[in-house]
Formats: sequence, C-alpha cells, structure tokens
Amino acid sequence: MEISDYADTDAVNLEYQNKTFHYRERKEYIEMFDPEEFKDNVGLVVSKLSKYLSDKSIRGINLYEPETLMKKIEAMTILENPEGTKEKLSEIVDLYIKTAIQVHSPGYMGRQFSGVYPLAGVMDFVSSVLSQPASFYEAGQLPIAIEKVMAHEFNKFIGYTGDFEFVTTTGGSLANMTALLAARNHRYPNVWDKGLDGLEGLKPAIAVSESIHYSISRAAGIIGIGENQIVKIPLNERKQICIGKVESTIIEARQRGLDVFCLVGAAGSTSVGAFDNIEELAEIAEKLDLWLHIDAAHGGSVLVSDDHRHKVKGIEKADSFVWDAHKMMFVPAMCTFLFYKKKEYAKGAFRQEASYVFDPNDNIYAMHDSASKNFECTKRPMILHFWTLWAIYGKSIFSDKLEYLFQMTQSAFWVLKDSMDFEAIHEPEANIICFRYKPQNYREDMHDFQLQIRNGIREGGKFFISKVDIDGATALRVVFMNHDINISHFNALLNEIRILGQKILNTKN
Amino acid sequence: MEISDYADTDAVNLEYQNKTFHYRERKEYIEMFDPEEFKDNVGLVVSKLSKYLSDKSIRGINLYEPETLMKKIEAMTILENPEGTKEKLSEIVDLYIKTAIQVHSPGYMGRQFSGVYPLAGVMDFVSSVLSQPASFYEAGQLPIAIEKVMAHEFNKFIGYTGDFEFVTTTGGSLANMTALLAARNHRYPNVWDKGLDGLEGLKPAIAVSESIHYSISRAAGIIGIGENQIVKIPLNERKQICIGKVESTIIEARQRGLDVFCLVGAAGSTSVGAFDNIEELAEIAEKLDLWLHIDAAHGGSVLVSDDHRHKVKGIEKADSFVWDAHKMMFVPAMCTFLFYKKKEYAKGAFRQEASYVFDPNDNIYAMHDSASKNFECTKRPMILHFWTLWAIYGKSIFSDKLEYLFQMTQSAFWVLKDSMDFEAIHEPEANIICFRYKPQNYREDMHDFQLQIRNGIREGGKFFISKVDIDGATALRVVFMNHDINISHFNALLNEIRILGQKILNTKN
Repeated sequence: MEISDYADTDAVNLEYQNKTFHYRERKEYIEMFDPEEFKDNVGLVVSKLSKYLSDKSIRGINLYEPETLMKKIEAMTILENPEGTKEKLSEIVDLYIKTAIQVHSPGYMGRQFSGVYPLAGVMDFVSSVLSQPASFYEAGQLPIAIEKVMAHEFNKFIGYTGDFEFVTTTGGSLANMTALLAARNHRYPNVWDKGLDGLEGLKPAIAVSESIHYSISRAAGIIGIGENQIVKIPLNERKQICIGKVESTIIEARQRGLDVFCLVGAAGSTSVGAFDNIEELAEIAEKLDLWLHIDAAHGGSVLVSDDHRHKVKGIEKADSFVWDAHKMMFVPAMCTFLFYKKKEYAKGAFRQEASYVFDPNDNIYAMHDSASKNFECTKRPMILHFWTLWAIYGKSIFSDKLEYLFQMTQSAFWVLKDSMDFEAIHEPEANIICFRYKPQNYREDMHDFQLQIRNGIREGGKFFISKVDIDGATALRVVFMNHDINISHFNALLNEIRILGQKILNTKN
Repeated sequence: MEISDYADTDAVNLEYQNKTFHYRERKEYIEMFDPEEFKDNVGLVVSKLSKYLSDKSIRGINLYEPETLMKKIEAMTILENPEGTKEKLSEIVDLYIKTAIQVHSPGYMGRQFSGVYPLAGVMDFVSSVLSQPASFYEAGQLPIAIEKVMAHEFNKFIGYTGDFEFVTTTGGSLANMTALLAARNHRYPNVWDKGLDGLEGLKPAIAVSESIHYSISRAAGIIGIGENQIVKIPLNERKQICIGKVESTIIEARQRGLDVFCLVGAAGSTSVGAFDNIEELAEIAEKLDLWLHIDAAHGGSVLVSDDHRHKVKGIEKADSFVWDAHKMMFVPAMCTFLFYKKKEYAKGAFRQEASYVFDPNDNIYAMHDSASKNFECTKRPMILHFWTLWAIYGKSIFSDKLEYLFQMTQSAFWVLKDSMDFEAIHEPEANIICFRYKPQNYREDMHDFQLQIRNGIREGGKFFISKVDIDGATALRVVFMNHDINISHFNALLNEIRILGQKILNTKN
C-alpha cells in the first residue's frame, strides 16, 4: 500500500490489544490550515497595514489607562463571536494598530524602535510561517549559510584581518551578556565548571562607561560578578568615556582589590548617542590586559556609512562588539549581531553537551551549528530578512537613511542653539538629541518640570518623545528613526513644548 | 505655519552659521515604504506560501552541503539584479521554502519545531510591521494588557490561589535561566550586588533530572553556580525522575558540602517526553527547603487538555515553571511563558535602575512595565499572536490538536510493540517516541547503526527524524507535531528504516 493511499484518508482506525484508536475526525483546527483561509486573513491585515503605512499624519501615542484596556481585552477574550471570526480578527488588528506606538508617523520621536522596512517585515512573515530555527545547520541551513556570507560582507567595513567570528542572537541584552560571559570565561577558565565561588579571594570586576546601557550592569548581576563590581568611568563633556580617566580609575579599582578583567565602551550611548573613542580604549585595554567590549547596539550601523564609519574607528581591535540591526538598520526586532575578534572566543561563552542536539561526530553539517555559540536553543532565522534587503538593494538603503537621520539631528541641534528658551545638552553624534526647555520664567528649583513636559506631550497625542537623566537632572530626549520627519516637525514639537511649558508655569505661579 | 505645510515638502534647507543642510532628496529607501510596493511583495510571498501550505507530499529535508549553499548565497549577495528586484525576491523565497525543514509535510517527524497556525503567522507579521515592543507599558500597552488577562485565563487550568506572576520571554532557555536566577537570588539575597564569590564557603548547587534540557546546566555555568554543581537525580524505567532517589541524592550532595537550593524537574522531557511527578517533587522540595522549578517547555501545553492535564498535577505548587507556546501551542517562535507561584519572586530575578526606561515615579502606566521581570529590553509582543487565536477560537483548537498528536504517538508505540524488528524504548506520555531498529541480523556491537539509519533517512529526503542517546546508546526519535500525519506515514517510515537498515547490514557483512 502506498503512503498516498493513506494520506488523504479522513479516518484510520487502529486496533491493538482490544483498544481501538479512532482518529482524524475533522476538527476546527484542521480548517485553520486551509490555504484559502490563510490568503483571506493576509488580505484582511494587509489592507489595514497598507492604510496604516500611507497615513502620514502627525500623531503620538494613544495611551489607554491600563484598567480600561484590560477590561476591553477581557471582553474580547470571552469566546463569543456573534459577529463572525473575520469581524473579530478585523477588530483585533484595528485595536492593535490604534494602540501601537506610531513608528511610521512623523510624530514618533520617542525611542530607538523604528518603522521597519516593510519588505523586511514581509520576509519575517515568511520565517514565521516556515517556522525554521537557526541554531542547527540541518534545521536551519539557509540562515546559517547566510550568516557565513554576511560575516564577510560586514567585514568589508570592520576590517578584521584574522579569524574572527560572527553570531546572531536575540537582542542586544543577550548579546552583551554573551560577550561578557566569553570575557569572564576567558579570564577565569575554571569558572564555568567550578562556579565563581571557586575563585578564592579574586574579586572579578568590569569597568564601564558611566552612561552604559542597563543590560551591562544587569549582566554583571546575572553572571555572578555582582553589580557592586561595576566600576564606572567618568564622562567628558561630550558624554563619552573620559579617556584621561580610564587608566587611573581601573588602577585605583585594582588597588581596592577588584580584579578588573573587562572594559566596556559604547558606540552610540543610549542616553545621548555618544561614541567612545575605541582606538584609545583598545590601547588602554591592551596595556592593562583587559577584554574590550563595545556596546554598539545603537551605533554599530555607522559601519555601513562612509560618512560616519570613522566614529567606530578601531572597532576591529575590540575583543567583542554588539550591533542591533533592529535599531538603525530598520528591520524587525530582534536582530542582533555579535562579533568576536577571534574565532575561539565565541566558543568560550558557553560549553555544553546534549546528544539530541550536538552531534558528537563533527560532521560537515554539525560543524556549522551555531548553538554552541549562541544562547538560544530555538533561534529565529533573523539574518534572513536582513540579508534579503542587502542582497536586493545593497548597503545604500541603510546608509542613506542613517545619514539623513544624523543630518536631521544635527539640524535639530542648530535649531535648539538658535532658540533662547531651549538648552541643548550635547552636540549630537548620532540621531539622538537631548535638551531642556528653560524659558525666562523657569526656575532651577522646578525639579519635575521637564518630566511634566514630557508626559504632557505624550498625553497631547501629537508627539511622542522620551526623557533621560543627565547630570542628575531630567532632560527631554528625541530619537529620530523616521525619515519622514523634517525640521518643520521638530519646530512644531518645540512649539508644543512652549505652549505646554507656559501652561505648567502659569499654573504653578 | 502649520506642520502639514511642511510635511509633504521634498526639500527643506536649513542654514546655520554658514552651514547649509539640504535634505529630503528622493532616495531608493523612501520608495521602499510605498504601500503599493508593500502589497505587491506580500502578494508574491503569499502566493508561494499558500502553495507551500497546500503541498501535502511526504518529504524530509533537502540538505545542501554547506559549501555549496554558501557559494549560491554569495552569488545572490552580489548586488546585480539584471532580472529585476521582484524576480530576485521570488528567487529568495523559493530558495527559503526549498531549504526549510518541511514542518507542514507529513514527512517531518524530526523535532519540536512545528508547522504554526497560519493565522498566528499572520499576526506575527502585523507585529513585525507595527514594530511594537512589549517591555514597557507606554510603548507596548496592548501586549502588556493582554498578558494580564491571559494570566487569569491560564490560571483556570493551573489553579494558583494566591498572588502569582506571569511573564512572557524569548525562549525556553531564557525563561529557565530567569527562573534559576530568581531561585538563586531568593536563597542568596546578597549575590546580585556582591557576586557569588562573596558567599564565603557556601557552594550553591542545583538538583536536576538526569535527562534535563541542556539549557539548565548551561544556566548553572552562566549564573556562576558552575556546571559541576549540577546534581543529577537518576531516572526510573519510564525516564521520569526516580522519586525514591530524590531525597537521598540531595542529602548525599549536601553531605559533600553542596548547598542544594533548587530542584528542577521536567514536564515533557526533551528526549522522550516524560513527565516527572510534580506533586511528589513539591513535597520533597518543601521538606528540604528547595525552590522547585519545572521545565514544562514542551509539556506545559497539556494544561489546556482535559485528557492530559493530570500529567502536570501539582504544577501550581512549583515556585516557577516554563512553558513554550511555540512548541505544542503551534505559534511562531519564540513565545515562552514563565509562571511564578508568588508575585514577589518575579522581581527577584533582576534588579536594576536606568532612568531612560524605568520611571522613578511608579505611575499608573510604568507600574505595569515588565522590563524589571524579563531579561529583554526590546521584547517582541509575543502574546499577541497567541491571544488572537485564543480570543477567536478558544482553547479547543489547541487541545484537540494536542490530543490527536498524543493519540497518534500512542498508536505508533503499539505498532512498534507489534513489530518483531523494532524496540520501543518507552511508553510515550506525550508526542515523542524513541525506538531502535533491531532486526534478527543486528548485533549489539554495531555502535553507530542507529545513527547511520537516522542520517540515511535524512539523506533519503522523504522523512526527517532525530536521534537521542538513551542509557548510553543512540536511539531513533520521532516527534509528532503535525496533525496531517497518520499511522500509515509512521508505517512507511518503519519500512524505509527496514530497507535502509538491511542495506547497511548487508554492506557490513
């Protein structure tokens, strides 16, 4: 009997020791795999998404009170579809679009999430349906082979001359932790097996930029170093690591008994987008025998820009660095790149055996498995949507957009400098600009004024900006991720701030 | 001047201190956001995906030699599109479909990756385009509010009576690590700040099932406990934790100086799908003052099945447990659920401050932020595609499919029991069955025979199965994730194995 004779049978019964197994009843879940149904559903969401992409109106976020939104969802979760399933799907997608941060609107200036290239979203969709994981070659051959090719593409801009390694992983926090593990295990080779309590007196510590992303100090807590062993290096007036203070800070920490083994700098700090001087850091790291890690989650994308690549000069000297493509490469999250200067470093982050996944015979397929180098067992084939854009359009779509956004930020800085009532806190190096509204009738003791402005702007529903603490005080923070924004939008934001700010000041007086 | 007057302007120039900024040139990347282009691209991939979903042919994987595939990709990466961008996109999607594991084919019996509900893929697509993160309420209000509602939906099946907590996170490995961190920090409250080297003599250790997933012992390496401090508890003949040996193993470890603080069981072990007796483990954990964690990444889905829920009886007594919806809830990866018996436990996994994300004022929005409870800073709104199915179809689509697959596995076991030339290694409790081909002319000293069969089947291109080491020897492993599979497909697989196995044996003789 041929398999095909069975394949379309709706009911096959099996008897065994007086037990009968009746199966393949037609059930609702089977209908859900119907390709026509699938096409219909795609049609429904695509017509809504297209309309959403066409909407260039200036809008912030439409924030619901949590209790209200939960009640709404509760009501939708009760399994009653009097209106039919299509109508319910339509209602869900509408609610989703309405409550989302409006990353494709020029009113969105809030954070580093971006309006993705729609084609990258389409390819991510293909990945969702094909359900192809990317940690093992036999299950994810295409993403793994693409990673090998893209490693060399990227290296045209990085400039490694030796045997480097490239790993994709799920988010900047995970990539940072992975790199710090590689650093920890490199310095203390027995820790993986014996634990950190086996160090007997040694107090491992990590030196970081004072403005480093929270995932770094969190990683210190996770990997057993302890957050107290984060040594903070002061910043200069441009909010970069103050190079003159690196060596003295580390030496002082070592004198206090801390075994500083790793130095972490930022290329595009989260707060203001500052780039640390990597060349200088690399020199110090070599001198003091430190692993140099660069968190380029935000700024790594300058690698593809001839205009801005100089900001990460020397990055090939770092032992590891992290770069989020879901930030300034404008692809769906998460899509994070982790680079190591030496291939062997990557293998040091994790060490493990498990027969159902790691083949003991290092055959031609298994030797390309990435599971020994990335944290995840199941990993999305995140390189695929990125590579699709790269293979079809090349680097210019990335560099052109990045250059526009950087220019836009520079021009916003000029506008602030020209305004008597605003204070620009830093000259931007990337697409982030932080500032304060300080009109003549503002007094320095109004501690929550900037925060009130920020929240008031959010409630206004026209713009969405964020806030950040700089030098102990709150500042307004704008991140330009959308090329539809031009200087008129920024001016309009400033005017909103003026109107709102004066209203707040008048209420106080 | 109104914003709208500017918004459509293609070129706005700005002058500042003799520098002029010309911008908004029309560039290729801007065209990429064109909604019509977007619709065209969706049309292209959907027609291919529909065809793929319709294809019920029996097929395994089409494995390329890595070098060959890389050369192919290299050639496609060179930026020449003589055939036009649409043709190149078409070529890419074709290659992707062709090289993917064929999760929607009845030939796919390999691993726990599944053919997803297409509608979940469609909703994941919406998430990719809307680019909405889910760690902070103001940026991800809908997913966060849905999580609150789904927590109570799930609890109908779990049965917590107190103030429990529900967190979504990116993958079972990350969820397991997060739970172990919560356990570590609960027992050693100073470790987060002071590091594990500050324990002065205490040797933290974790007791696990001998067949626990590699992410658990890997987590011990990561969080500073050290892999050597993994204490393995022997299994019974059903490959569950041998309850009679738990207490003695842990007491013996404590006598050796190990401070065992955590006990980890499995609900649906990766190798054979065995369910540990959670009720009994909970009793022992309480007696010995242990944090009980259950890795229910694979088996947690039985919670929604009235027929199989009893397999996780007592799970509400575990301090934490992990459940991957991207396994037997058939939604796109990653979509992992992490539950804590007590709300406060969740806050203990990470502790952190960062002004640009964590609002010092615990306002009505920020109090719902999940970033303090999940590892990720940027997190996909993974609950959305799941909830969409749940809200429209309810639990039956999940339970019906799961019950079919479990029944199917049971019937495969019967077939093996009835076959003189196969050895079933265990009676299945889930949708995983492990066995060996042992015909009369097989000899026990043929160590790589099962592995040869497994690889030969893969090369045959009709079926895809996996392998696992059980009791020191390789076994064949089948995971039924596809409801299109019926017993005839399994019989056909066995016949392929017989033909291949005899060929191998005849070559050897």
